[in-house]
Amino acid sequence: MNEDEQHEKDFKFSEAPTLEQIRGMQSVFCKERNWDQFHSPRNMLLALIGEVGELAEIFQWKGSINVGLPDFSEKEREHVSEELSDVLINLVRLADRCRLDLPSVVLRNIQHSPQRDSAPATTKTSKLFKPRPCNKE
Amino acid sequence: MNEDEQHEKDFKFSEAPTLEQIRGMQSVFCKERNWDQFHSPRNMLLALIGEVGELAEIFQWKGSINVGLPDFSEKEREHVSEELSDVLINLVRLADRCRLDLPSVVLRNIQHSPQRDSAPATTKTSKLFKPRPCNKE
Amino acid sequence: MNEDEQHEKDFKFSEAPTLEQIRGMQSVFCKERNWDQFHSPRNMLLALIGEVGELAEIFQWKGSINVGLPDFSEKEREHVSEELSDVLINLVRLADRCRLDLPSVVLRNIQHSPQRDSAPATTKTSKLFKPRPCNKE
Amino acid sequence: MNEDEQHEKDFKFSEAPTLEQIRGMQSVFCKERNWDQFHSPRNMLLALIGEVGELAEIFQWKGSINVGLPDFSEKEREHVSEELSDVLINLVRLADRCRLDLPSVVLRNIQHSPQRDSAPATTKTSKLFKPRPCNKE
Repeated sequence: MNEDEQHEKDFKFSEAPTLEQIRGMQSVFCKERNWDQFHSPRNMLLALIGEVGELAEIFQWKGSINVGLPDFSEKEREHVSEELSDVLINLVRLADRCRLDLPSVVLRNIQHSPQRDSAPATTKTSKLFKPRPCNKE
Repeated sequence: MNEDEQHEKDFKFSEAPTLEQIRGMQSVFCKERNWDQFHSPRNMLLALIGEVGELAEIFQWKGSINVGLPDFSEKEREHVSEELSDVLINLVRLADRCRLDLPSVVLRNIQHSPQRDSAPATTKTSKLFKPRPCNKE
Repeated sequence: MNEDEQHEKDFKFSEAPTLEQIRGMQSVFCKERNWDQFHSPRNMLLALIGEVGELAEIFQWKGSINVGLPDFSEKEREHVSEELSDVLINLVRLADRCRLDLPSVVLRNIQHSPQRDSAPATTKTSKLFKPRPCNKE
Repeated sequence: MNEDEQHEKDFKFSEAPTLEQIRGMQSVFCKERNWDQFHSPRNMLLALIGEVGELAEIFQWKGSINVGLPDFSEKEREHVSEELSDVLINLVRLADRCRLDLPSVVLRNIQHSPQRDSAPATTKTSKLFKPRPCNKE
């Protein structure tokens, strides 16, 4: 096992906060500021899209990027972290405002129809992914 | 407390799976299929955007939507659930491939610069949100 | 015909610049700055998504918005204009970098499979659009 | 001048349809189907985002893509063309429903604050774009 593989094997998220803890913190935070009135599902969806746009802006001029962002400065990594966090916070709030139990749906989806859209079908692999060095980024 | 307020007070996500559990399940799932080679940060970002687009498609002809999606059929609620789940799965995978500890960043952001972008600044409220019935959705 | 209908009847875009004129101006502009090297199709796609996110941010806390943006200030209308323009400029540049003749494709699509995705199917209308005042925005 | 440079020099969009012609065709088309009632600015914005998501899906597993899409099949190029066209049609319709003269804004923006966001600032170039083969795609 080389160093990268070891790192991949070792990398983990922190166990907390859970999705429910994030939801609960947001809920209290927004209630205190009287923001519930503005947080309709469509408003939160547009807020989510705005944050995804900010994430895209960080990556837009970067060309291929390797796993672990090895060519990013610490400041750039921090910037990516914050935008990922903003996307998640808005996603959790959107699910909350839809009154949909996001974690249980994720569990069901992973178990029963796992990730049908998050990689090319095996049969298409040879066509889509020619073994060019740049392709695998 | 009226019925809606009680419902809001009672609504919670399931405690599991945690973000780390989702990350771990995805990681195993993708490794088994030899998909790691395709899951570069930029590829996962575009996959995330594709899922956000599918979420937008559900909401696009709906006009104003109230909290809890009261006018959605069970099938439509199911559809929203699945797309929210797909967005989350791709977001978690993107953070994993960036090797960024998403939960810890969320915790830090909520504690220190809470949600600066997810509602209008208080000072702008009066200008942005005239009390029209449709506005608060 | 009431005043709004007259306005709708009268509203037109300026005839110039055409899509090709926009493409040409951009092409010269980018060549002068030696930016062609950065404008790969995927980079331009992410730049487009970033601009779409900025557009979403303007609309995110607005609730329902009527045709013609009657409740927007002049400054807000200006802001929307600029973001729409940025999206178009990036879209034209993306098509240029893909070497795809955008206007001719649009013409073909409008003539042969007109707008199949840009409104609900007639048969679904009654289900999707209940005649609520807020719904038609 | 090599072959690629010649091709770039020669590539042009068709002169028609203009943005106003696209707007006019859409306007008639939607009026005939009684769709104006559904085409509020926010509905059209979400429709635009849905189309951008479909565009992202085409590019998501592709890794680096060169100018002119040389590794795409004819069918894939056709698919990109159609999604670019759908994005443009929705963008034009959104501008129409906002009653904003998109071409004139584009002209003004190109002339006065040209493309401030569509490439990295010159001063950042050396930092952001290290001369790696994969980076320039």
